[in-house]
Amino acid sequence: MPKIIDHDERRSHIVDVTWELITQGGIEAATMREIAAAAGFANGALKLYFPSKEDIIQATYERALGMMREYVELDELRGLTALRELCVSSMPIDEDRIAAGRVLLTFWQLSLTNPKLQDKYLEHIRSWRGLLHRYLAEGREDGDIVTETPDEQLVDEVVLINAGANVMSLVAGEFSTIALQRQHLESFFARLTRP
Amino acid sequence: MPKIIDHDERRSHIVDVTWELITQGGIEAATMREIAAAAGFANGALKLYFPSKEDIIQATYERALGMMREYVELDELRGLTALRELCVSSMPIDEDRIAAGRVLLTFWQLSLTNPKLQDKYLEHIRSWRGLLHRYLAEGREDGDIVTETPDEQLVDEVVLINAGANVMSLVAGEFSTIALQRQHLESFFARLTRP
Repeated sequence: MPKIIDHDERRSHIVDVTWELITQGGIEAATMREIAAAAGFANGALKLYFPSKEDIIQATYERALGMMREYVELDELRGLTALRELCVSSMPIDEDRIAAGRVLLTFWQLSLTNPKLQDKYLEHIRSWRGLLHRYLAEGREDGDIVTETPDEQLVDEVVLINAGANVMSLVAGEFSTIALQRQHLESFFARLTRP
Repeated sequence: MPKIIDHDERRSHIVDVTWELITQGGIEAATMREIAAAAGFANGALKLYFPSKEDIIQATYERALGMMREYVELDELRGLTALRELCVSSMPIDEDRIAAGRVLLTFWQLSLTNPKLQDKYLEHIRSWRGLLHRYLAEGREDGDIVTETPDEQLVDEVVLINAGANVMSLVAGEFSTIALQRQHLESFFARLTRP
């Protein structure tokens, strides 16, 4: 009887392996050769599942996004409450999320020279910023958010603090602690509720 | 007459070339082979000037730091004025500074798996945070800074916004604009002067 190969399972296994290589050894460790070896494939066989390294990196990045999406529980929420949940849950506030930041750092690096990965990232940023705008608008409608700071500036502030925290928790976590991240968000939310 | 070789000039040339490779093609383009070829050296000859790739990357990162230091003019300044100069000048507010951010992104990535580069980065962060603390303390002494937010939180906020802006101006510059960066800093400074 021929062996049945589960294509999706193989792809998922390759992403697991790439995730491990990136979080353990960084971008330099995640070569096609290393990925194939760690996944137990002959070098050329990877191509059956992913046409190029770019595709593997993209799938690994999507795993990171998917992981973050699972942390964020937005159902039923709106306005300020939804905003708070979205902002807090997507910060690198535990070991797993800090590791996901490492995948993100690799993805940023590669997206700088790869238009396809860059498009993917801009698509994510557009939808994230859109969601932040929506919750801010709802929060103003509900009368919870009254700050005079324009929404576009608030959205960008959340994005910069989040990106900065992802980097700093990796490269200088002894200074930029999780406790400080929480304080930044608390101060931010307090400001939203004041004119 | 034997040709006189200026060791420092050669090192500086190698750093120029590495800078170009990183800002044009990212970390993947800056291999020892590519650096040697672009600098006009035989592959092994690079070792006469830099023992390892790590040393080249470190020297290139130091060039980025040196560049940022030149932008910041702190002589005679103290307190809130010095703080403002330090914060504004070290943001990626023009093309050259955005390019320096790219070198920084590469350095972060490599520092994650290289203890020597990581020590170098932590040394920089320690001194940067120390300077921010000093100016905040002076600003309070002068009565210009009166916010109740603790200095450690303010320092970390500057660091996160700066790191976030460095990343976002590279990977999503169409959203995280220079104008928004300036607005963030203006709002931050306005907050410092209110209880």
